[in-house]
Amino acid sequence: MAGFFAAQASPNIAIIKYWGKRNDLLKLPMNDSVSVTLAGPFFTETKVELSGAGKDSMEINGRPADDRELLNVRLVLDFLRKKAGNTLKATISTRNSFPEGTGIASSASGYAALASASAAALGLELSPAELSVAARLGSGSACRSVIGGFVHWKMGIENDGSDSYAVQVAAPSHWDGFRIVTAITTSQPKKIGSTDGMKRTVETSSLYRQRLEALPGRTAKVLAAIMKKDAGLLFRLAMEESNNLHAVMMDSYPPLFYLDDVSRGIIASIHELNEAKGSFVAGYSFDAGPNAHVFTTERYCSEVEALLKAQGVGRVVVSKPGPGVEVLGSDSKIRNRP
Amino acid sequence: MAGFFAAQASPNIAIIKYWGKRNDLLKLPMNDSVSVTLAGPFFTETKVELSGAGKDSMEINGRPADDRELLNVRLVLDFLRKKAGNTLKATISTRNSFPEGTGIASSASGYAALASASAAALGLELSPAELSVAARLGSGSACRSVIGGFVHWKMGIENDGSDSYAVQVAAPSHWDGFRIVTAITTSQPKKIGSTDGMKRTVETSSLYRQRLEALPGRTAKVLAAIMKKDAGLLFRLAMEESNNLHAVMMDSYPPLFYLDDVSRGIIASIHELNEAKGSFVAGYSFDAGPNAHVFTTERYCSEVEALLKAQGVGRVVVSKPGPGVEVLGSDSKIRNRP
Repeated sequence: MAGFFAAQASPNIAIIKYWGKRNDLLKLPMNDSVSVTLAGPFFTETKVELSGAGKDSMEINGRPADDRELLNVRLVLDFLRKKAGNTLKATISTRNSFPEGTGIASSASGYAALASASAAALGLELSPAELSVAARLGSGSACRSVIGGFVHWKMGIENDGSDSYAVQVAAPSHWDGFRIVTAITTSQPKKIGSTDGMKRTVETSSLYRQRLEALPGRTAKVLAAIMKKDAGLLFRLAMEESNNLHAVMMDSYPPLFYLDDVSRGIIASIHELNEAKGSFVAGYSFDAGPNAHVFTTERYCSEVEALLKAQGVGRVVVSKPGPGVEVLGSDSKIRNRP
Repeated sequence: MAGFFAAQASPNIAIIKYWGKRNDLLKLPMNDSVSVTLAGPFFTETKVELSGAGKDSMEINGRPADDRELLNVRLVLDFLRKKAGNTLKATISTRNSFPEGTGIASSASGYAALASASAAALGLELSPAELSVAARLGSGSACRSVIGGFVHWKMGIENDGSDSYAVQVAAPSHWDGFRIVTAITTSQPKKIGSTDGMKRTVETSSLYRQRLEALPGRTAKVLAAIMKKDAGLLFRLAMEESNNLHAVMMDSYPPLFYLDDVSRGIIASIHELNEAKGSFVAGYSFDAGPNAHVFTTERYCSEVEALLKAQGVGRVVVSKPGPGVEVLGSDSKIRNRP
């Protein structure tokens, strides 16, 4: 028995959002998405230990994984075990530095760390694309947290998902002054999780098709804005995309509401800030929860922080683009860390 | 001088909403809409007096009309004066029994009453369609408050608006058990009025075109549900339409938010009620404001009222389908009323 292998991954915040699957099991998305992988303070650390034990098991923040989570974990493990020609079972423990189910994607960092630690435990040396595919099988957005910096998840066209993985658009160093200011307005888990929510939108929203038609154009503009470090364009596109996403959520039946009055106060305050500055110095983005992610640059970061606090937000956290998943090593290496 | 002529009109609540103009001045809509005209307790009473005075003037709830209102008033008056071959100026006073700008359409009842009182003052005997066109020139939705019961505003195809007016689908007596329960959650005027809001949606929402494409189908279903008194179908369609409308509002740039946390609590409680009953016994509908209109039937009316009050709503008002605009008569007749 090899002892445990550990990996650490951070959440990513999407600028172009993933909302809707064309294959539920393989987590194949209905559209390309674009994101930034964070550098701390949010992260997930996952340890994987292989043994001849009867079955795979996992605990998350001290609680046992539920059936849906175990199914997704096994999809990742089976994909990697098949590559490795190995049938050992995994004992997994994972810890998040942030509350689950609040719009900060714990599943993204969680399955990215799981895929990476499991691959290491199985002795696999995988390309970033292969690791991204493995993470995607656990949770779609996890394929983006494998990669650092600015990331593009290409939806792919193959039915087996082999071409649906994330690639790096630009390294963290490309845009060193980029900042993500996260306002944690609640630590309550959302009522309807992303998996069920996006399924409802795909099945019931009459506006969803129009969103899909508009997305390739918006995605191309976002990618160009990142390459040119055109902050104003990028922030404006991010806000349009966030509002478009929450519009199709509301158009779902029954309607999905992830924003609350605090979120709406933040939205109004960012529009006021941009108006006062006469240019787009910040842009908000909301996932399936009320917490706000505000993209800005170093120059306006403290102003954005102050503005969010003035909206009555309890905790405001600033992140930069980060390096993607990192293998911490096996237990012997970890024991020797300072 | 003929003394004053007075008319009384009630708001109407749209099931299929009017949101977007193809001609701003003539208030020609981008889509057909369907509504119910209320019978009290909300109403507008408007008095019109003609004289050789220098210009048209109007006061609304004791305040002078602003420039935009005066422009719209003159559009109504000029249309009617041309028909009558009369050039006298109008002195107008109007009173609402409910606060302005809160999602209860004071402009609808206001311009319906204005058109009717003005036509009477000018000695015109107009068809309901002609009166509906006149009211529409003041405010689009006013063309529906001219007509009683269940109303269909056909968008028309002519550039001059001559075929864009409301017709009666069914008289109030057709569905005597129909109820509209209105939850007044605020009396604050909305930040962005309907005229500016709908313009923003038409100009900026990428989802608006898809809404327009889906509307004829939904409208036909709503009209059929009214004729068959199929409450379950009608209430479900009303909720879908309301959510669809607020989705394109949110997709506008900057986004338009008319719902708040109380509105969302009401929405959730109506879905819970329907689930508990195993059928659609009620359906919510929101205009450009947080106040909720809940369609239901006599049988479930008190249950809906209790439910809204449990959401912390201060004032809940129940209405039935009503008769449309009524001329109260000239001053001599009014003086003789009991």
